[in-house]
Amino acid sequence: MAITRQTMVYEGPGGTFESVVARDDAATTPRPGVLIFPNVLGQKEFDNQRAEMLASLGYIALAADLYGQGKRATREDANPAEHMNALLADHELLRDRLLHAHATLKALPGVDATRTGAIGFCFGGRCCLDLARAGADVAGVASFHGIYKRPPWANATITAKVLVLHGWDDPLAPPEDVVALAAELTEAGADWQLHAHGHTGHAFTDPSVHMRERGLFHQPDADRRSWQAMQNFFAEIFG
Amino acid sequence: MAITRQTMVYEGPGGTFESVVARDDAATTPRPGVLIFPNVLGQKEFDNQRAEMLASLGYIALAADLYGQGKRATREDANPAEHMNALLADHELLRDRLLHAHATLKALPGVDATRTGAIGFCFGGRCCLDLARAGADVAGVASFHGIYKRPPWANATITAKVLVLHGWDDPLAPPEDVVALAAELTEAGADWQLHAHGHTGHAFTDPSVHMRERGLFHQPDADRRSWQAMQNFFAEIFG
Repeated sequence: MAITRQTMVYEGPGGTFESVVARDDAATTPRPGVLIFPNVLGQKEFDNQRAEMLASLGYIALAADLYGQGKRATREDANPAEHMNALLADHELLRDRLLHAHATLKALPGVDATRTGAIGFCFGGRCCLDLARAGADVAGVASFHGIYKRPPWANATITAKVLVLHGWDDPLAPPEDVVALAAELTEAGADWQLHAHGHTGHAFTDPSVHMRERGLFHQPDADRRSWQAMQNFFAEIFG
Repeated sequence: MAITRQTMVYEGPGGTFESVVARDDAATTPRPGVLIFPNVLGQKEFDNQRAEMLASLGYIALAADLYGQGKRATREDANPAEHMNALLADHELLRDRLLHAHATLKALPGVDATRTGAIGFCFGGRCCLDLARAGADVAGVASFHGIYKRPPWANATITAKVLVLHGWDDPLAPPEDVVALAAELTEAGADWQLHAHGHTGHAFTDPSVHMRERGLFHQPDADRRSWQAMQNFFAEIFG
């Protein structure tokens, strides 16, 4: 088994995008495809590593750029949320880019287009939910410490199974948002699960985050358990 | 591998108890022990089957009688909750019986007393939480569609890891009870997780329950997924 990375540059809604594909070169039969939606900072090494982890599980993973080539941020920037906020200000464009990323995944050589999923972190967790809300024919989405607020557009029929991996102390997703999301997904008829982790805030999967006073910090137990839950979830939906 | 059942009759707090032990007869080394706390109806075939399922996973399982020998109910009884309500009316006695069941498990031949857990269904899910609240030196408890109300006594230090397997539409455990339980377990410092299942009510593990209009019904997805989650949980805590 040799896991490889390939950078992809392609045109999409409102720009040029630079994403990374990870796959097992030894694969000879079609594999399920999984999107990775990055956090607020945009496509980066963390996402590429998760793509490789998914590739080692037998999937073809696309760590998707949603901001556009060259549009990246770091925690040290004056406004790390600049690109995210610009995109959130045009939520229809965000939807178009999510659907385009999914279409790009499905068209990748070796991907079984009937078996696709998406995961995402923070803003990317929100993107997972929005992809499901947009009615994409994705088998399942797994949101890690996402944001649960609804988009300004109405939900399509949600056919994707939904797994929400949540830190109970997340200041960006308080209990009332959890209750509202549960009601929304129930009303939409979605097959959903939510795993709440105690003593866990936002960004719990990211070892580089150390802002405990603001509720953003790595939580190794929740990180490990949620990744296990995602594996079970994909094993179920991809058969 | 041959899974065997053995009926055990023994004295305990306020009575004589009849429980069932399931184990793999081929085991030659000490095994983790797992308690099973029954639902409102008391110790019965459902619990014995789960005990055998746990035995097939490599554990020694004690499906524990908490009401006393001969005190059993059926759904068809005039008051199926008679024995449960009698015991709940003396919550200190319930605590004593939970701790006694745990001591009984630890003393079973072949059980590694340093590696024990508990699961339970409905009333038994409540009992799992109460065992943790009582400060038992159990490594972990997994509550299936339990009741989240606190006992009248104060929590001890909760050292057990806690996994709560929950149906979001459970009329016996509405969202406000979930939020209160999360706050309680967080305050107690417990390592806790809660898995909420959409479109799932009370009794979701029990194929014999068909009271959808009252919110009690089997939900095969939640049943299967929660059992998988319990397996992951025990694999983690028993090493």
